[in-house]
Amino acid sequence: MIPEAVLKHIDSNYQRSITDLFEFLRIPSVSTADIHAGDVRRAAGWLLDRLKHLGLNATIYENSGHPIIYAELCPYPDAPTLMFYAHYDVAPPGLPEEWETPPFTPVLKQGRFFARGAVDDKGQLFTILQAIEAILAVDGRLPLNVKLLFEGEEEAGSPSMESFVARRRQMLKADAAIVIDILKYRSDLPAIYYGAKGLLAVVINVNGPAMDVHSGIYGGEVANPVQALCHIIDNLKDSGGKILIPGFYDHVREMTPEERYEISSLPFDESAVKARLGVNALVPEKSYTPLESVMFRPTLDVNSISGGAPPGESLMIIPATASALVSMRLVPDQSPDEIYDLLEDYACSITPPGVRVKIKKQVSNEPFVTPRDSDVVRIASRAMGYAFGARPVLVRSGGTSEIVSMIRKATGVKDIIVTGWGDPGDGEHSPNEHFSLENYRRGIIATAAIMYELAREKPPTKSE
Amino acid sequence: MIPEAVLKHIDSNYQRSITDLFEFLRIPSVSTADIHAGDVRRAAGWLLDRLKHLGLNATIYENSGHPIIYAELCPYPDAPTLMFYAHYDVAPPGLPEEWETPPFTPVLKQGRFFARGAVDDKGQLFTILQAIEAILAVDGRLPLNVKLLFEGEEEAGSPSMESFVARRRQMLKADAAIVIDILKYRSDLPAIYYGAKGLLAVVINVNGPAMDVHSGIYGGEVANPVQALCHIIDNLKDSGGKILIPGFYDHVREMTPEERYEISSLPFDESAVKARLGVNALVPEKSYTPLESVMFRPTLDVNSISGGAPPGESLMIIPATASALVSMRLVPDQSPDEIYDLLEDYACSITPPGVRVKIKKQVSNEPFVTPRDSDVVRIASRAMGYAFGARPVLVRSGGTSEIVSMIRKATGVKDIIVTGWGDPGDGEHSPNEHFSLENYRRGIIATAAIMYELAREKPPTKSE
Repeated sequence: MIPEAVLKHIDSNYQRSITDLFEFLRIPSVSTADIHAGDVRRAAGWLLDRLKHLGLNATIYENSGHPIIYAELCPYPDAPTLMFYAHYDVAPPGLPEEWETPPFTPVLKQGRFFARGAVDDKGQLFTILQAIEAILAVDGRLPLNVKLLFEGEEEAGSPSMESFVARRRQMLKADAAIVIDILKYRSDLPAIYYGAKGLLAVVINVNGPAMDVHSGIYGGEVANPVQALCHIIDNLKDSGGKILIPGFYDHVREMTPEERYEISSLPFDESAVKARLGVNALVPEKSYTPLESVMFRPTLDVNSISGGAPPGESLMIIPATASALVSMRLVPDQSPDEIYDLLEDYACSITPPGVRVKIKKQVSNEPFVTPRDSDVVRIASRAMGYAFGARPVLVRSGGTSEIVSMIRKATGVKDIIVTGWGDPGDGEHSPNEHFSLENYRRGIIATAAIMYELAREKPPTKSE
Repeated sequence: MIPEAVLKHIDSNYQRSITDLFEFLRIPSVSTADIHAGDVRRAAGWLLDRLKHLGLNATIYENSGHPIIYAELCPYPDAPTLMFYAHYDVAPPGLPEEWETPPFTPVLKQGRFFARGAVDDKGQLFTILQAIEAILAVDGRLPLNVKLLFEGEEEAGSPSMESFVARRRQMLKADAAIVIDILKYRSDLPAIYYGAKGLLAVVINVNGPAMDVHSGIYGGEVANPVQALCHIIDNLKDSGGKILIPGFYDHVREMTPEERYEISSLPFDESAVKARLGVNALVPEKSYTPLESVMFRPTLDVNSISGGAPPGESLMIIPATASALVSMRLVPDQSPDEIYDLLEDYACSITPPGVRVKIKKQVSNEPFVTPRDSDVVRIASRAMGYAFGARPVLVRSGGTSEIVSMIRKATGVKDIIVTGWGDPGDGEHSPNEHFSLENYRRGIIATAAIMYELAREKPPTKSE
């Protein structure tokens, strides 16, 4: 599966590489906050140096947002070409007081390292670099052509990526692509995601009086934007989790009996999920199990809401405005653009008098599904089984992989999977995000194994 | 009505007094923000010096919150005693960018001065001091006994006042009390409020998962606290503005035909209100006019809501928690304690599965109504007609005057009104709060006139 010397090199080096990774994690590359734009750029520069040092041809591509890094080592005209995607930006850390140690001061505790980006996605990205480093150190060359695409605004919805890949079809041509940006299915069960949902995120703004007004003077005659917004939100879903936007389900591909059977055989410990999250009930869509609901059914969540004075300031006002970030995870064959139009019409139709509603598109991505019998699924499955000691489960993600859709659409690469090495409890997008050293090590081995296996087994190039 | 020399003194001095008032306005005595506790204390000290300088016996009373200032000049054993109440704390300024000039840097522009507290209530409080100053300067003594009660946490719901007044019945004994903390009915129409609503403000907290979780991983199985909160809020009122809490209206005193007639004769320019607030419709409770709804009907408003990441950070999460500040304005004979219990039961009964709801009482005050034929109403009406050139309208407030209820309950003073000199557009509790010099001047005259008239006409003491 993987030369003994390479495995040894990985085993003796992965802990030492943590020092370098910590340097990377210390850069607060929060792509959604303007104030961190310089830090995102700094992280890109750091990564570029690293790639060049490894011997790859690496370039920073500027665009209207944060830079994209592309690197390759493609010495073989006829060998297969494998592309890896990962991202070097991170989600905002949220409230500092919820972190036990500061989000951008990585620390190693009990076999795990803690930092924003530890697992999502800087730590996982680093496994690709370490695998390449080990192979080059031992063999002096890679077993196949490798292309690396590292993004700096994944957490901001990848606004620049679509036009980037569309303008570089030739450069990005590959036989298979692996997106490393997700967690295992369960700590003891690696996962290969062969499909993911689309995403439509919108900001709903409700405007009432031109200024905040005293609720004792105007209460009883002036419509309250917060209440109007709550009315709209409350009418987006029924008590069974069914989304009430007319036409929303028109193009939803229903689950086949085979898919339902397959999903029902996946391990799912409802009590454990409830205990881990501290909730007294799971609330899947009516007539679906939690797994079916998460993987195969479109969902709608309010990600944030605000209106009125900051919490703690007890202002007795009718606020001038209220707003919410509402996101929908879409499934094949829903179109974000169509759903946006449906939502807009519906929200206007249920807006109470005395306020005005405005809906602004924030993020929009298509859902995708890759055939389960494709080469990359089979080979990655074997390599990961070797690295983690357990065959990965083949699943679909309730999350979104805009990058997969973009790569598929722009380059014609068909064999794409999404995978990763972190555990479900690693807290990506939450306070105290972390990544275990052991998963980090196995991730490096898996990456190297995939390269060797693809080099040995991958049939001749079939991409367009 | 008022000695010519006193009137002259007021007219020649009110503009000069603005310099002193600006010093007072510069102190950011925001009572709801812990960070400003020292400023509230500083404002109290400033006011104490001022009162002593005027020759009053003035004391700062410490308590668990912000200090209360009490001052008196009661030289006559048999003359009537008039109490004035006002407050020296201010509402939070809200967002700095919404102010044209900084909230705590008072400026005079086109006959108006701008600052947080300009009208609510530091500027209005200052008219009492200026009236006393003028009378003492000319007459060398006041025409009656005067007691001044100045609070430092009105905007925080007056948490210390109840026990303060309850323990000082004798000290606070008076024949009449005037609360100066409200605006005119219309710019050209002063108002005497002989009744006000009660207030019950609660924080509704909805807790879901123990931590924020990724909406792509858990969306479709984990209940969303924001959506649950919106569901609760949306079910607090129907589309006709009727509050849906079972039992809520059980003790509401219905309007009499006389009251409805009286209210219908009050000037009310609905288009002007709509234009000033920039709203396309007013939304009174069904079967009531806007004025009836505001003055005589209980109301419910959400004053603020929050959940998820701060606005601007597009975190695709299911937030762990969401909360809202909900306040109800109550009318005689509703009891805040009873309503709280009803709300709690109801909210729990409509909370969807997968989340937990907690309701915390924040502010609680009884409604009040003073008989319209009481002495203080008659005399203040005449004095204000003289000062402002227009007879005040006799109205009830949609707002709350907790202080009136407390004073009535604790001291037995029956003749209490709430009035003030500012215009409805002065923006109390909003950005760019201001107060016109002309209203400030007339307020001083009205205060002096009330003292002279009460001294001349007030019948012998009747308080308990």
